[in-house]
Formats: sequence, C-alpha cells, structure tokens
Amino acid sequence: MNNVNSFRFDYNNMLAEFVGEKEGFQPSELAALKPELDKAYATVEAGRGKGMMGWMDLPYNQGEIVAKIKDCASRIRSKCEYFVVLGIGGSALGPTAVFTALCHLKHNDLPKEKRGGAPKFYVEDNVDPERMQALFDVIELDKTVFNIITKSGATSETMAQYLAVMDRLKAAYGENIADHVVATTDAKKGNLVKLVAKEGFESFVIPDGVGGRFSELCPVGLLPAAVLGIDIDGLLEGAAAMDAKCKEADYTKNPALMAAALSYLSMQKGKNICVMMPYADSLRYMSDWFCQLWGESLGKAVHLDGSPAFVGQTPVKALGVTDQHSQVQLYTEGPFDKVITFLAPEAYRTEYVIPTGCEDIPDVGFLGGHTFNELITAERIATEYALTKSQRLNNTILLGEVNANTVGQLLYFFEMQTAYTGAMLGIDTFNQPGVEEGKNATYALLGKNGYEAKKQELDAKPAKRADYIIG
Amino acid sequence: MNNVNSFRFDYNNMLAEFVGEKEGFQPSELAALKPELDKAYATVEAGRGKGMMGWMDLPYNQGEIVAKIKDCASRIRSKCEYFVVLGIGGSALGPTAVFTALCHLKHNDLPKEKRGGAPKFYVEDNVDPERMQALFDVIELDKTVFNIITKSGATSETMAQYLAVMDRLKAAYGENIADHVVATTDAKKGNLVKLVAKEGFESFVIPDGVGGRFSELCPVGLLPAAVLGIDIDGLLEGAAAMDAKCKEADYTKNPALMAAALSYLSMQKGKNICVMMPYADSLRYMSDWFCQLWGESLGKAVHLDGSPAFVGQTPVKALGVTDQHSQVQLYTEGPFDKVITFLAPEAYRTEYVIPTGCEDIPDVGFLGGHTFNELITAERIATEYALTKSQRLNNTILLGEVNANTVGQLLYFFEMQTAYTGAMLGIDTFNQPGVEEGKNATYALLGKNGYEAKKQELDAKPAKRADYIIG
Repeated sequence: MNNVNSFRFDYNNMLAEFVGEKEGFQPSELAALKPELDKAYATVEAGRGKGMMGWMDLPYNQGEIVAKIKDCASRIRSKCEYFVVLGIGGSALGPTAVFTALCHLKHNDLPKEKRGGAPKFYVEDNVDPERMQALFDVIELDKTVFNIITKSGATSETMAQYLAVMDRLKAAYGENIADHVVATTDAKKGNLVKLVAKEGFESFVIPDGVGGRFSELCPVGLLPAAVLGIDIDGLLEGAAAMDAKCKEADYTKNPALMAAALSYLSMQKGKNICVMMPYADSLRYMSDWFCQLWGESLGKAVHLDGSPAFVGQTPVKALGVTDQHSQVQLYTEGPFDKVITFLAPEAYRTEYVIPTGCEDIPDVGFLGGHTFNELITAERIATEYALTKSQRLNNTILLGEVNANTVGQLLYFFEMQTAYTGAMLGIDTFNQPGVEEGKNATYALLGKNGYEAKKQELDAKPAKRADYIIG
Repeated sequence: MNNVNSFRFDYNNMLAEFVGEKEGFQPSELAALKPELDKAYATVEAGRGKGMMGWMDLPYNQGEIVAKIKDCASRIRSKCEYFVVLGIGGSALGPTAVFTALCHLKHNDLPKEKRGGAPKFYVEDNVDPERMQALFDVIELDKTVFNIITKSGATSETMAQYLAVMDRLKAAYGENIADHVVATTDAKKGNLVKLVAKEGFESFVIPDGVGGRFSELCPVGLLPAAVLGIDIDGLLEGAAAMDAKCKEADYTKNPALMAAALSYLSMQKGKNICVMMPYADSLRYMSDWFCQLWGESLGKAVHLDGSPAFVGQTPVKALGVTDQHSQVQLYTEGPFDKVITFLAPEAYRTEYVIPTGCEDIPDVGFLGGHTFNELITAERIATEYALTKSQRLNNTILLGEVNANTVGQLLYFFEMQTAYTGAMLGIDTFNQPGVEEGKNATYALLGKNGYEAKKQELDAKPAKRADYIIG
C-alpha cells in the first residue's frame, strides 16, 4: 500500500474523539476556522515567488543551477577529502539536516572507500575558539574545500571563520587558493560577492526572496548535498510533490494547511510548546532545522499592522526512543502545554534482527528474534498510545522511508506549514528584527566604527549588583 | 580575581531593578519565599544519603571505587581502540556531556597519538536499526570494549544492544569474550548482575539511591571518563566544593537554593519554559543532560500527598552563539514564557586570534586583530543585553574555565537546584511513573509474556479514522 516516497500526516490524536474532550479539538472548531484557513491559503498563494517567498519557486526554477552544482560537486569530490561548510543559521542547519538524513550515520568515521567517494563533512557554525582550533586539528588543508555561505557577507561569525581560513590558505599556498574555496552568496550585493571577484572563487547564488531558514533547497543546501553524493534531483522532486499537495485549497486535503490549522488552534488554546520528535537517528537534525524555521518565523512582537503580538510557539527537539528516557515523563505527566509531533519512517533502510539469547531471563529473552525495526516501531506506537491515554495532543508524520524524495517533501511541508501559520497569526513570517539589537551591541562591544552611540548606551546601563552574584 | 575553578551564579537580570518591573522579581518576593526555601533546604538536607538521595554521598564515599575504576580504565586504554557505552537516559547523557566538555571537540577524528592514549568513544542510546548497524560499520570488534550500563538489566533498549553485541563477540571469539565487556549495574539485583556472574565480566556497581539522572558521578560516568583520560578526582572534588556551597542555609549565599527559588517563582508566574544556553561547544551536551534531570524530575502529575500537580517546566537546549541565528528572535520577541540561563566560561582553553584581512570591507575588516574569544564573549554579553532590554528573564552561570572541577561543580549544582525545586513543588523528584505506560505497551506490542491484558487494551482502542490522515 505504501511506497517508499509516501508522506502521511496523521492527526487523529489532535481530536477530541481520540485524545479526549478536555484537550482534543472538535471537528466543528476546525470547520469554524475555514474562513481564516482560506485566507491564509490565498495569502500564501498570492505571495508565491514574490518578496521573501522566492523559496516557493525553488522546486521548479533551478534546472541550469542543478547542472552547474553537479559539475562543481563532481570536481570537488575528485580533489578533496574534507568538505567544510562555514555558515550559521539556515546555512548550517539545512546542510546538517540533509547530510544526517541521507548519508551513513557515522559517515566521517567510515574509511574513504565506504563513503562512496564523498569527503568527510564538517559544518562549522560557531565562533568558539576551541572549536575553530579543533577543526584545523583534524583536517588536512591541502585536501580541503571550504564552502563559505552568507548572503550578505556581513555575518560576523562566518566572516571571522573566513578570515581564519584565508590566513591559513594564504600561508600555505600564496595566492593559489581559489581551488580551496567555493562561495554561496548574493548575486550582486554584499561583501562576499566582492571577495569572489577579487579572489577568483567559484560561486553560487542565493536567490532573492530566499531567507536563510528557507534556503535548504537552493545552492545553500544543494551544493553540500551534491558533494556528499545525495540525489539533489530527488530532493527537488520531493519538494515539488509536496507543493502539488499544498496547491489543494481544501484544508482537509492539504497536509500543511491542516497542520497549520492545528498549530494555530493549539496556540490559541495556550499550547506554547511544540515538540518535534523523530523516531530515527537520521532525522535528528531535521528537528534542529525545524526549530529555526518555526521559532524565528513565528516568534514575533508585532502583527503586520504594527499592533503588539508577542506570539510564537517554542519548538523543542526530542529523539525517539532516546528521549523516552529523558522527556516523556514530563510530556506524559507535566502541564498540558505542548503538542508532540512524531516523525517516523514506516520502513528503515536497514533491518537488524535482535539475536536470541538469555532465554532464561524473561526481560531480555523476549527480545530475541524480533528486529530493532520492530522494537523502535513498537516503542513509538506505545509512546503515542501512552500520551494519548494521558490526554496529550500529538500527531504523526509518516514517511515511506527516509530518502531524498521524502526529505524534500518534509522540508517543503514544514516551510508551507510555517507560511500558513504565520499568515493566520497576521505577522511577518520572513523577517527577524529581534536579532538586530544583539548584533548592534556586539559591534559596539568590539569597537566597530559607527556604533559609538550604542557603545555609550551599553556603558550607561546600571552596573550589576555584586550581591546578586553568588560564588 | 577569578581562578579557573570559580563558579558564579549571576541572577541580576531576574530582578525588576535590571529586567524591569513588568517581568522582574522584587527582592521582597524572594524574601517572602524564605519559609518555603528554608523548608526545602531542610528537606534536602534531611534526605541526604537516604532513599533516592544516595547521590549526595557520591563526592565522599568512593575512594576505593575510584582506585578500582582507574585500574580498570588503564587496562582498557592499553588494550582497546574503541570504547562503546551501551546505555540510555542518564547512562548515556552523563558520559556524553562529560566527554564533550573535557575531551577534544573532535576527539574521534584525531589520530590516535593526539588522543592522549584514549580510544575512540561512542555512546549508543537508541534502537534505530540503522544506527545499530552503523556502529558495527565503524568499529573493529577485536579492538573494542563495550561498557553496558543498566541498573536493572531490564532496559529493553540496552539489553537489545547487549544481545547484538554478544552475538558478534561470541561468533568471533567463542566464550573468550570477558575482556570485551564491562558491566555497570546493581550490586545484587537484576538481570545484568546474573550475566556478570555467568559470563565473567568485570563490573562496577550503581549504588542504591542513585537514579539514572543522578548517576554521572558514580561509576556510570566515572568509568567512561577515566577511560577517556579525564581527571575523575577533579570531577568529584568539584562536586564536593559545590556541596560545601550548598550546605549554606541562607538562600542568598547558596547558589543552587537561589536558583531553585528563582525557578520556582518563574514557574508560579507562568514561565513554563527554561532554556539552557551554553556559550561553549564543549558544554553543548551538558544541556541535554540537564534537560533530562529537570524534565524527568519535575514533570509530575501528582504531589506527594496524591493531589493533582501537572507541574514541570519544559527544558530547552540552545547553543550560543549558534542559536542566536535560530532561537533568539523568538526569545526576544515571542511570548514572555521563558527563562534563559546562559552558561559561560570566563576563559576558553584555546585563544584564537582572528587574522586581519579585508580591511577595505568594514563589516569584515573590523574583526581582524580581535580574538574568537572576544567575539563569542561579546556576542554573549550582547545577547544578554538585548534580552534584558526586551524584558526577558535571564541569568548566567560563569565558570572560570571548563575543567574537571567546574564540570563537577556544575553537575552537582544542577542536581541540588533540581532537588530543592522539587521539594518546593511538593512532588517526588526522584521517580518517573509516567514512563511505565509506554513501557508496558511496548511489551504488549512485542508479545512479552504477562502483558496479554495490556495487549487486549491496545487492541480495543478505537481504530484511527482514515479521513484524519492526509496523504
């Protein structure tokens, strides 16, 4: 019945019929939301490809770019042993999520011949000095290609890493360094594009209308994926397949619109937490990618009309079954403040039989002969059952298996769910004004020209009280 | 002024004086809490070493055990290249947190001579078949020692892994496998202790009164740490130093008691989310360890007297500066529903100068000559400033540096904060009844003897409606 590319959104346990009257929604509540859902659907469709919604075109408009990416990736694969992404936010979370989903779970620990020709892969998304040093402790510079990703070329973290890398490359190879760097940046504007021209780097374009958290399906994500041997056509085909499902205006048939409806209702009822809980190690960083998308898109202080909003549901990542031994106690018995989304492959790409043994110990012996596949699936269904029995809202996204197509579907599904939900909340889904203050304060603290007034503001804040510091 | 072992809890930005009247607490609110704080302090002190509070004795009662652990670790280091922990929950989170804090950030990618004699290290805490297979794809069985950790020997996940490992070991070495397995389990009870006797494994004891999430400072955590070359005496000395600070009955001088007071007040005021945000890659998994401790200890449906509670603050892990580009938008502009705890070393163990370059590009050029140390610190202070300016409750734990002593302090600090907070909430901090339902349902689904009634219950639940599944 299900093929490997199937994608099913199961929301039975969001409804009163299954999770109980106290917490569950009535079909009538969903129906009453129809005008708002129709409007959100229309808003998103009207925005398709415009403004900051260029990401909706990505499944369709990249034929030439994909060919160029594949060509570049093939050259990179033939010459390097280490491929290092320098980026932060979506530029790091997307590549990491897709890598983990679609490469071997211990890719970097495999000998090269078992990596299918792919280099080791690192994504460096922090400015911890210990981590910067640690990278150089494990790579061989002569066998490394760096992919620097920033649209503006003004991201301090990424540009500091860039300076560190360039310093080492130039010390080793003088001006012959173009082979070691690929830039992914704006077509015309910003600093990195200037450096591309000056240094002769190969480069790819982050299209206008594609913000960081919506960028995985443009060259930001596609180049690293192609270098790793991932089927990038499959990713885009999956996204297109999900887009087709999201062209359905009827919310009962459009999975992302239904998911948005349920998220919106949940938020209205005070569920300020949403948990993303994949039952697959391969999907664990998909949660991190989702957390940025959801948190940064929907966490907003004002509505589009400028009125106060202070909305946003806090995304939480969890991992099944692992976090059954960490978070499920809280999910089952704590406050009724969250919605849990399970993310599960119907089939895993490996079958592993639990060997028989310890037949004289019933707690252990009963496992033998089952598979790990059965065990993880039983635990997921059991956890779903326990949560539902304790009246906790939950839903499940079932993927036929984890492959390029279903990962493409999943990425696009979450993007559409986010866009619809943002439209319903009446906020700007695509900006992030709340990070400016911290950015400016950093500039001021580091003495950047033009931030003297901000520095004065910081200096003028009341000194901390020593009696409010213990230790 | 500060030495490398310093530990300071800075709660200025929890108070109205600094974070504003709307959200901040008044000193009078804290003062009004004094009777409850005194009671919580007395409850915890009265429980010291008794019942499930055996963990409070761990800094003091392990002299002989530590010697035995060091001896065992030294033998393991001399014979193996891979050390694999099989465990879940605290048995995995603790070893992972301490490993990441105190070993090289890319330990497993270093050549052996740079690992200081330590083996590669894996912690396997899931039953994903793809992950089970992936482990065997990257280790060499003849050079591997497995440390199986479970108090009961009835943890399905760990025992399934045990069966998989034993099958491979026996196929390779017949009955000569004792050298490849070390067990950490109960002294007398349970299944694993039987297997120790039968198979001749070396073993260590998880003391009574030490639950999984409070077990890092017993052999559960100390053996892996010692194998990795970590200073386990330092860990225990740090814990003892923090315990000394927590013997202070005055809540204005006891850092964990003050932290508990602020957590309790926050929860009372509807802050149902707490974010743990280290500004150090080395501390990133300390957040995961904390999330189990906090979530599983405080997420409870009933008070000690049996009355309904449904309490618990949802812990969220974040990483600075990385998550400034993911979650800080939400933290700054979203609902006033959370408290952020920054975790920061005052000094990093590496200094890395940002090289000069791009002087003609002001956004980049200003970075040169600063250090990554200055950059990450400035970003932390800037984020703290931005959050405070937008009236978001936050506090900071400052460690002199990340070392065995401060990590020991940190682990014990959080344990004490959790114990005090649980006492104030009037719940059982040390049980986890909410995971039983899922465990039993798993047994039922896998056909374990004795779970026939549960299987009938599962079979009797209403079938899902197909029209509530889209796709």
